Amino acid sequence: MSYQYTAEQSISGEVSSVYHSLASHRKKKSTNRLPVIVIIGAGFGGLHAARELRKANARIILIDRNNYHLFQPLLYQVATAALSPDDIAEPIRKIFKDQSNLEVVMGNVEQIDCDGRCVQMADGNTIEYDALIVAAGSRHHYFGNSEWSRHAPGLKTIPDALKIREKILRSLEKAELMESPEQRKPYLNFVVIGGGPTGVEMAGAIAEITRRTMAQDFRHIHPEHAQITLLEGMPRLLPGYPEELSEKARRQLEDMGVIVHTDLLADKVEAHGVQAKDRWFPARNIIWAAGNKGRSILQTLDAPMDSSGRIEVGPDLTVPDHPEIFVIGDAACVHKPGGGELPALAPVAIQQGRYVARMLRSGTPTEQRPAFEYKDRGMMATIGRARAVARVGRWKMGGAIAWLLWSFVHVAFLIGFRNRVSVMLKWLWSYLTFQRSARLIVGRNFAPKEESR
Amino acid sequence: MSYQYTAEQSISGEVSSVYHSLASHRKKKSTNRLPVIVIIGAGFGGLHAARELRKANARIILIDRNNYHLFQPLLYQVATAALSPDDIAEPIRKIFKDQSNLEVVMGNVEQIDCDGRCVQMADGNTIEYDALIVAAGSRHHYFGNSEWSRHAPGLKTIPDALKIREKILRSLEKAELMESPEQRKPYLNFVVIGGGPTGVEMAGAIAEITRRTMAQDFRHIHPEHAQITLLEGMPRLLPGYPEELSEKARRQLEDMGVIVHTDLLADKVEAHGVQAKDRWFPARNIIWAAGNKGRSILQTLDAPMDSSGRIEVGPDLTVPDHPEIFVIGDAACVHKPGGGELPALAPVAIQQGRYVARMLRSGTPTEQRPAFEYKDRGMMATIGRARAVARVGRWKMGGAIAWLLWSFVHVAFLIGFRNRVSVMLKWLWSYLTFQRSARLIVGRNFAPKEESR
Repeated sequence: MSYQYTAEQSISGEVSSVYHSLASHRKKKSTNRLPVIVIIGAGFGGLHAARELRKANARIILIDRNNYHLFQPLLYQVATAALSPDDIAEPIRKIFKDQSNLEVVMGNVEQIDCDGRCVQMADGNTIEYDALIVAAGSRHHYFGNSEWSRHAPGLKTIPDALKIREKILRSLEKAELMESPEQRKPYLNFVVIGGGPTGVEMAGAIAEITRRTMAQDFRHIHPEHAQITLLEGMPRLLPGYPEELSEKARRQLEDMGVIVHTDLLADKVEAHGVQAKDRWFPARNIIWAAGNKGRSILQTLDAPMDSSGRIEVGPDLTVPDHPEIFVIGDAACVHKPGGGELPALAPVAIQQGRYVARMLRSGTPTEQRPAFEYKDRGMMATIGRARAVARVGRWKMGGAIAWLLWSFVHVAFLIGFRNRVSVMLKWLWSYLTFQRSARLIVGRNFAPKEESR
Repeated sequence: MSYQYTAEQSISGEVSSVYHSLASHRKKKSTNRLPVIVIIGAGFGGLHAARELRKANARIILIDRNNYHLFQPLLYQVATAALSPDDIAEPIRKIFKDQSNLEVVMGNVEQIDCDGRCVQMADGNTIEYDALIVAAGSRHHYFGNSEWSRHAPGLKTIPDALKIREKILRSLEKAELMESPEQRKPYLNFVVIGGGPTGVEMAGAIAEITRRTMAQDFRHIHPEHAQITLLEGMPRLLPGYPEELSEKARRQLEDMGVIVHTDLLADKVEAHGVQAKDRWFPARNIIWAAGNKGRSILQTLDAPMDSSGRIEVGPDLTVPDHPEIFVIGDAACVHKPGGGELPALAPVAIQQGRYVARMLRSGTPTEQRPAFEYKDRGMMATIGRARAVARVGRWKMGGAIAWLLWSFVHVAFLIGFRNRVSVMLKWLWSYLTFQRSARLIVGRNFAPKEESR
């Protein structure tokens, strides 16, 4: 089966709405029109697929539940009050304003109808496709304990980050008002569950907030009252990284005062603390960075899934028996030729998005498609001010050099010129002054209601 | 009665917590300690009172429900996606980090106990005072129709602004997906109720969003589909300004395509539109900018109030029979010697805050205090890009000069160096590119919930 999207079909008159009521959907099915490529999700994978399709003679419809693309690698900086949401998010419409073959739909996909070749939206409407790219990302995985999410929020979205930011800032405010050190303690204890890149970054950033920045602003609490604990179930931090870097990361965190426990799985998460084996960690601030799972929309694809709910795709990233449906990024489970799976990283999603777009544009038939190959250029994680670890090809490094490299790469990748300048300025500012600039507790949920008199 | 706060009382050991359980509150009452000045509210009035007291030999406790000071004159720019919340808000603790006689308490005041000379907090704790400055600000006044607030949100707080921003951006997203122009129309109709400075600024800013910025990003909706209506119950816009400026403001708004109705009071506000006399204005976006009232906390002062629920204070801004309780800013109703009342403007609150602080520092007895006098340096309102009106002393001006003056004054007054630079850059950027930088729909209320599988 082939999808020749460089073909010369054309449409007359104004482009019709992408939305069809079910009735009109059935009627219009047979009329002559441009092929439609629907992309679900405007994360790294979806965004780069859409960009790579800019010259395709097709109608591209990019669906996302939000109106912005999120630069997720810096989300922990919003959670720890160093950046504002605007700094790491860019309106999708703005990114694509000059790509005339693309339309943006803000909405929630409820179901994928593989046989009917359409996507059902939560508002009852339907969007038809000829080819579909599923780049829906992932959610937190509480391994069957979804009630833990209430006490230990995870970090995937801007609302997640704002919730964590508020929780941390409110805890400091509460601790400041407490009369005795015993009352204060739980508010100044922080437990981060999960020692992957997000967990390491969060633990480091919290250590910086409490130990440096907050020291100046409060009268009754002092940096040495704070205690940050990082729990990892595996024998070392950053399990996907070279061992040497795991060790470097651990040492840098401990230098900053973080207490690191490896080989220690959380057994129970409650409002007041975490139980791990026979140890109880009392804390009012618990952050979940321990696992990802596929979004529930993937279940409607009726394709094989791994234990984390990701779709097991073929070498060309398609779903079995559906050469027109591609799954990429965190939503896909791709086995490496030598064993193991591709990691859930932005570069993987980006390369997959570009690969899929090339396959669609060239119209390569399924059986002739070359298998997707990930070009691994390296990986990095930041820990704090002038502290990071990085692997570039076979080079491994830690400390200030890794941190400079990390900063450079992340700013360079931030989409949109304004964000780059603004983030650069904020970092420079906070480097020079030790100040965090986005320390507002805005809290919709806590906002004062209109008073009744 | 006199409050000599330059006295030489001293305390020994560490400063105790400002919070007292009721029991300890009664016990500690008689011990030797520094006089305590409590300030409720860190708006313009409270902030400037606190600063002016930096050399007072007293313990100053500044209470606010938020952890930030809000630069309210620019709040409409957050509501219209030109600025982010961080740009116009500054953590209170950061502002006062070097003022050692001041402590910040983040919390809600539930009641003022004038006889017991203490403030009851919502969390059950109590804060004692020797002198009290009430700078609690105001809320929207729906004139007995509080159910309108659901359809026509007002603009006082950052959550208010984010709610309005989301409503506007979501409307455009919805309109883009509608199949017919009739379905689209209500989503592209905007009604602003109230033609004071906030209403004029909102109407102008919405005109700019819809007519310029949004024109580039959407495929199916066009700027000419949008309709912005401004309703004012009085015979002219900006009723507190010179008539000449009202006329100038109206002409500038109409140039931008805003439909202005004066002498037209809203009789009914519903989800789908506004009824005013015999006219029905269908609209999905309704914004309330029509009136202010005092916060309910003021009722616990048991002092005379005007029809808007503000406290009628004496010439020295105190409450009758309580020379130790001052009310300033939007919470106070001050009659001018020549008739009329002082307007609810930032400069009034600032001057009042400084006056009260001076009275407290010098310890002037009530009967010898000079009456508060407002030095009126002028007023201004902005309308759009290079459009504004201003009065400076007796000079009146409109257009680009007024706008430059407005920009200069507002940036100069923004507290905190970082904010100033960041706001300046954003303005320059949006002036050059016609882009609004903060167009994110973040919506806590609409945030996707953790999926259950």
